[in-house]
Amino acid sequence: MLLRRTAPGVVGRLARGLSGGRPPRDDKFARVTQEDVQYFREALGAGGRLVTDREGLQAFNRDWLGNFEGATSVAVCPTSTQQVSKVLSYCNERCLAVVPQGGNTGLVGGSVPVHDEVVLSTSAMDNIISFDEVSGILNCQSGCILQALDTYLAERGHTMPLDLGAKGSCQIGGNVSTNAGGVRLLRYGSLHGSVLGLEVVLANGEVLDLWQSLRKDNTGYDLKQLFIGAEGTLGIVTGMSLLCPARPTSVQVSFLSCKSFPDVLHIFRLAKQHLGEVLSAVEFLDRESLVTALEHMPGIRNPLPDGTSPFYMLVETSGSSETHDKNKVEEFLAEVMSAGLLVDGALAQDTSQASNMWRVREGVTEALVRRGKVYKYDVSLPLAEMYALVEEMRERLPGDSIRVVGYGHVGDGNLHLNISDARGKERQEVREAIEPFVYEWTRERRGSISAEHGLGLMKAECIRYSKPEAAVRIMGAVKKMLDPKGILNPYKVLPRDVVHEGC
Amino acid sequence: MLLRRTAPGVVGRLARGLSGGRPPRDDKFARVTQEDVQYFREALGAGGRLVTDREGLQAFNRDWLGNFEGATSVAVCPTSTQQVSKVLSYCNERCLAVVPQGGNTGLVGGSVPVHDEVVLSTSAMDNIISFDEVSGILNCQSGCILQALDTYLAERGHTMPLDLGAKGSCQIGGNVSTNAGGVRLLRYGSLHGSVLGLEVVLANGEVLDLWQSLRKDNTGYDLKQLFIGAEGTLGIVTGMSLLCPARPTSVQVSFLSCKSFPDVLHIFRLAKQHLGEVLSAVEFLDRESLVTALEHMPGIRNPLPDGTSPFYMLVETSGSSETHDKNKVEEFLAEVMSAGLLVDGALAQDTSQASNMWRVREGVTEALVRRGKVYKYDVSLPLAEMYALVEEMRERLPGDSIRVVGYGHVGDGNLHLNISDARGKERQEVREAIEPFVYEWTRERRGSISAEHGLGLMKAECIRYSKPEAAVRIMGAVKKMLDPKGILNPYKVLPRDVVHEGC
Repeated sequence: MLLRRTAPGVVGRLARGLSGGRPPRDDKFARVTQEDVQYFREALGAGGRLVTDREGLQAFNRDWLGNFEGATSVAVCPTSTQQVSKVLSYCNERCLAVVPQGGNTGLVGGSVPVHDEVVLSTSAMDNIISFDEVSGILNCQSGCILQALDTYLAERGHTMPLDLGAKGSCQIGGNVSTNAGGVRLLRYGSLHGSVLGLEVVLANGEVLDLWQSLRKDNTGYDLKQLFIGAEGTLGIVTGMSLLCPARPTSVQVSFLSCKSFPDVLHIFRLAKQHLGEVLSAVEFLDRESLVTALEHMPGIRNPLPDGTSPFYMLVETSGSSETHDKNKVEEFLAEVMSAGLLVDGALAQDTSQASNMWRVREGVTEALVRRGKVYKYDVSLPLAEMYALVEEMRERLPGDSIRVVGYGHVGDGNLHLNISDARGKERQEVREAIEPFVYEWTRERRGSISAEHGLGLMKAECIRYSKPEAAVRIMGAVKKMLDPKGILNPYKVLPRDVVHEGC
Repeated sequence: MLLRRTAPGVVGRLARGLSGGRPPRDDKFARVTQEDVQYFREALGAGGRLVTDREGLQAFNRDWLGNFEGATSVAVCPTSTQQVSKVLSYCNERCLAVVPQGGNTGLVGGSVPVHDEVVLSTSAMDNIISFDEVSGILNCQSGCILQALDTYLAERGHTMPLDLGAKGSCQIGGNVSTNAGGVRLLRYGSLHGSVLGLEVVLANGEVLDLWQSLRKDNTGYDLKQLFIGAEGTLGIVTGMSLLCPARPTSVQVSFLSCKSFPDVLHIFRLAKQHLGEVLSAVEFLDRESLVTALEHMPGIRNPLPDGTSPFYMLVETSGSSETHDKNKVEEFLAEVMSAGLLVDGALAQDTSQASNMWRVREGVTEALVRRGKVYKYDVSLPLAEMYALVEEMRERLPGDSIRVVGYGHVGDGNLHLNISDARGKERQEVREAIEPFVYEWTRERRGSISAEHGLGLMKAECIRYSKPEAAVRIMGAVKKMLDPKGILNPYKVLPRDVVHEGC
């Protein structure tokens, strides 16, 4: 699984969106003084952590892809909601901009400062508060690491309702704030369904207690939903209640190769039909993705002798009866074969083989970073047209150093389109060949220009490709209502023209 | 299944919330004139329907329980979003109050006028627009009847992600606007997860197009969530995109009796453990519920010879393999028996037996209405304490004519507490013995005073039992932002003191 790592060789270049580069610093925001730092120190007391040295700040200033880098002079790591409240209340008063940061594993520059914003990290808020084994309801602080929560639940017969490559370092508060999707959304749905309650600290330091542990509550507007996917621009999530499913006792993973993308879709349909309620993931990767993973990730092996098919799929079931599940998978594979859809296929015989199959799929992201510069896109599209975007992009971007790869979550209509350039540097002509083409292509099909990564800094100015004017205007009004001074995660999510003045 | 029916004998009395009766008419609202009616007639054109005669209006003015009755002089039934937009834009300009109405099956007075508000009914907007059999995504107008949609999907191998007793008359737009829960929430989750896109007409007539058909879209705040459960106070839902699961080919229903509520919870735990991913409903009813259903609903038979146990349960599985599912159910029942939890039990041998079991559970609601006056409460509580509320209520309300019954969705921690009075009339001393006790009891346990019914008129003033002040204040700000004049469904959901002036 992909753990957080230090930034790779290519660093410090800001991926430019359509807006033409890094937005200028908004001079309404105050600059951090020694008095401010002194206040933060006192607010944190003995438990919290304050980082002000240059070396220590590097991890807070730079995203792991090395595409975004800010210049904060202070990172504040509180241990409690009360401390978060104190810090925000002070920053709001002083008009100091604040970037909430979880595991800093985002891909669109949402979690690092653009200029000198104060970083408020939830890393030191990692307490598990309670877990009810009858209802499956977990209460925890927002700084808990996803994998740590899943390990805790595993010992109690349950599982987290989401899973993603960055699980070893991403934090649940960041997952909620970015509405993280990942590989099991097909089975357990989105966080809009799994999050039962939230505790959020608003920009002015007020604690908004929406922390209920109930499956059903129809008393007024479901305000917590606004903070799920708001990328920290409306408030800072400090605690939550999550509905966690019973842990499957049987997991079956198969790895298949096939001849065309229509065949991928046909296999997906058969998987839905034959695997029904135990189907938990249907992922695909093209040959270019597979080759990149095998080239750059030591220890990953091709599960199939076949390395020349244009498409590969990973199909996973998770259920409560090994006998029943294996039986269903066998019927599914028999049907896929008899329909002539399969070039080759393997069914994992143990957890080690299953992990290797997952490593192939999840290793693509990091392999691409190792290969050189990577231009990342994450789109939702109608299934039938999903792969045509990759093919058209290949035609637009010839050249030896360029490799266009497509992989993603078939079950969710979510394509990860990545353009890898072995030359290793951002090149304007490459960027211009991709944008705005990729966004326009997506808009024409009423797709989403960000299926799961969010908008962050990278795509804030591109929001109108996926949202109509009225929606963007209302988002601006919501921002103004909850963060009147605009101190929370400025320059992100919303385009500049709808952001109110503030301060 | 429970179909919409004409109001029963007890009519026209307004169930009083804590606020002490029907709120006075807000005189900022204009009164409907002949010119207004003429405008509506022209706006609707040939397709739409306009109701102005006294008899015809009765169905729009009165809720099916007979607890709430308004006095509108006009009901407008448009056929298109454009017509809804025209009508709302006009009403907003004129400051005419509007009540959106779907199937009018609500239980808290949310869908009928309080005074002379214009009724905007979605009944004539019942087109199914598209269905994609690969992704399971349905697009339809908001006036489609839930059961009609499910029948349509059944022919295409899919099912609606929700099911409730009123399915024969409730409309999907009303389901979304009230965030309807129902009996399969345990399996398919809430509408916050199943609704992929919405089209909403705002108070000023502007069409807010959030109608995407994508499983994943992280481009900005998820505004559609605000309208799910807002009971028509923020906008009128006119169209939607829903994610529909594959239809289970095997449904197994069992009906069990047991000795205590802790045994009910123990059986629920075993069901989760043994039935895993095929578990689709765990309902319970107490003996008083069963007896009421058997007494007042002709054609319903007790599935068990045992009619004296204090608790009954309905456990349903829905899966894709009959062999596997029956096998799982047998193991579950064997475990329940060997744990000594079962007094008696029956496994439905065919769909007729299964329907009868469901009729017992779903018939309770209507049986209570037939028995006389019913005081209805719908609370979410921690599972362990859920039934204690029924027992305490029994102690508070002795007397021959009173019957306190408890039933509901164990899997969701959702109790339907009903106090039935055979005397048939609202009695102040009964109401005062129940309220505010039931709300205070729920608040002390951090429960919800409305798990799935919503607040409507009945509980608007009670919102603070389940929501903190900051949340109520923000709701008021959201209302002001989206409906500045306050014309949409006034007097409902929000307490009077947070509703802005408007007009």
